[in-house]
Amino acid sequence: MSITVVGSVAYDSIETPAGRRDRCLGGAATYFSLAASFFTDVRVIAVVGEDFGPEQEAVFAARNIDTRGIERAAGKSFFWEGSYLDNLNEAKTHNTELNVFAAFEPKIPAAYRDSQFLFLANIDPVLQRRVRETMPDVKLVAGDTMNYWIKDHRPALLEVLKGLDVLLINDTEARMLAGDNNLVRAARAVMAMGPRALIVKHGEYGATLFHGAGPKGGSAERTFRAPAMPLDEVVDPTGAGDSFAGGFFGYLASQPQLTPGVFRRAMFYGSVMGSFAVERFGTERLQQLSRQEIDGRFNLFRELTHLD
Amino acid sequence: MSITVVGSVAYDSIETPAGRRDRCLGGAATYFSLAASFFTDVRVIAVVGEDFGPEQEAVFAARNIDTRGIERAAGKSFFWEGSYLDNLNEAKTHNTELNVFAAFEPKIPAAYRDSQFLFLANIDPVLQRRVRETMPDVKLVAGDTMNYWIKDHRPALLEVLKGLDVLLINDTEARMLAGDNNLVRAARAVMAMGPRALIVKHGEYGATLFHGAGPKGGSAERTFRAPAMPLDEVVDPTGAGDSFAGGFFGYLASQPQLTPGVFRRAMFYGSVMGSFAVERFGTERLQQLSRQEIDGRFNLFRELTHLD
Repeated sequence: MSITVVGSVAYDSIETPAGRRDRCLGGAATYFSLAASFFTDVRVIAVVGEDFGPEQEAVFAARNIDTRGIERAAGKSFFWEGSYLDNLNEAKTHNTELNVFAAFEPKIPAAYRDSQFLFLANIDPVLQRRVRETMPDVKLVAGDTMNYWIKDHRPALLEVLKGLDVLLINDTEARMLAGDNNLVRAARAVMAMGPRALIVKHGEYGATLFHGAGPKGGSAERTFRAPAMPLDEVVDPTGAGDSFAGGFFGYLASQPQLTPGVFRRAMFYGSVMGSFAVERFGTERLQQLSRQEIDGRFNLFRELTHLD
Repeated sequence: MSITVVGSVAYDSIETPAGRRDRCLGGAATYFSLAASFFTDVRVIAVVGEDFGPEQEAVFAARNIDTRGIERAAGKSFFWEGSYLDNLNEAKTHNTELNVFAAFEPKIPAAYRDSQFLFLANIDPVLQRRVRETMPDVKLVAGDTMNYWIKDHRPALLEVLKGLDVLLINDTEARMLAGDNNLVRAARAVMAMGPRALIVKHGEYGATLFHGAGPKGGSAERTFRAPAMPLDEVVDPTGAGDSFAGGFFGYLASQPQLTPGVFRRAMFYGSVMGSFAVERFGTERLQQLSRQEIDGRFNLFRELTHLD
């Protein structure tokens, strides 16, 4: 079944210990779409500027991603500049230019309305909510957010959380949102805000799925942990979390039934897509990827934690 | 088969967000022995002062741990005082008094010499090496160390590493020892120093076993990751790593053959013992534990990462 995703399509200038790239195609919706496109049909809602040309369009077209919901506006596309020189786990932002994104009013093409899966990538929660409300009948809604919205736009974010089935955030965001440093208690508090399931991403240590509060002192019954593969070279961490989300949600949308086993495999596919994304700059690796490579790595991940 | 362990038996004063304990029984060899004693016979080599009395002796006796190698010296036992108020993942040391440990000369009782497994807990590498040399015929030698020895006693430590089958250290120590922030490359560099296998402990994110260098870009074939269980209350992290080591090595020593599958299960038992250790202050939880509880949690851990 198809996924509709709303989020940023942008240009990124990135510096890492492996080198530098200027104005490469980026944005949460871009990484998400590319990752999810290996599993199911994807439709994007975003806004870009006049600097978004045939070359960028071709990246989406090559993966059969529906871009009819990408609006062209006068001006420049969203631009982000950051580096990971001291710490590959955390970007240092040098510059953010919202540009056409500042006045973004998501418009959902009629052709998108039968999507059964909706992903609200990290954007202003007011916009996330608006999109959510125009697609009330979807089967599953997942979303992402970040420290900025958690700190300074909490009431709007809380409204979004009420309408989510699955929230995907990282450790720091989960602890900040709940106001609790203990991850299990934080997960319980976040789920009480609305989401039926919470995925906490741990960067190079994988990710944990919480679904339902476990009994005190033993949460494993309602918890699943997917590993990340130890990699001997991380070229560029940008988009790892969005690629995780795309692999996770793309796999879910490709399955006839959402059983606990499907959710577990989806966590592994999320980790797999995140691990590919960081191997080269920007979206380079996701553009040069095959389903065969994906399933090969899925089997390596299984082996990585398999007991018998 | 029995394990001989050399290391500290000490008193700890600990403060955590959950409270405070003064002068409770601690030390790496203590945690290691208690954890390993649920799997196999354990013999301890250490030194204690006149403050080590029948009450402490009884803790070892209750688990049938052989203490004939614990020497009584004039003076006070090793003492450590620390807190985890800001960060449960890292102890802040307030005071360390070596006391009788300053002049420790490990003496191996004749009755210990047929041990097939030797664990060199975190002590001066000069002493680790001396014990290693008096037991040249053991089947498997594992050891631990810490940042202090890595930074300031590197030549002595490198001599120890040459004689180790398995080294157990944490993320920071692995990166520091190798001088490389990438964990896969760091693991490869550390194994080139001697150990055939390296276990890197990630605290609340579990632990990774590296054995043999994988091909570039894909290390999963020679890598195994054991999860840690997300816990909703960590009372006292002291001894978690030593308890991991005890569970890991104790399980290995209890098995007739050291197959890859046995190593994987040993990693899980390590994680299980670490997760129990932190549930109460000091060794309280390890003293009140049953093999049935251990195997119950082992099954929860398996479930935590099991795909199908």
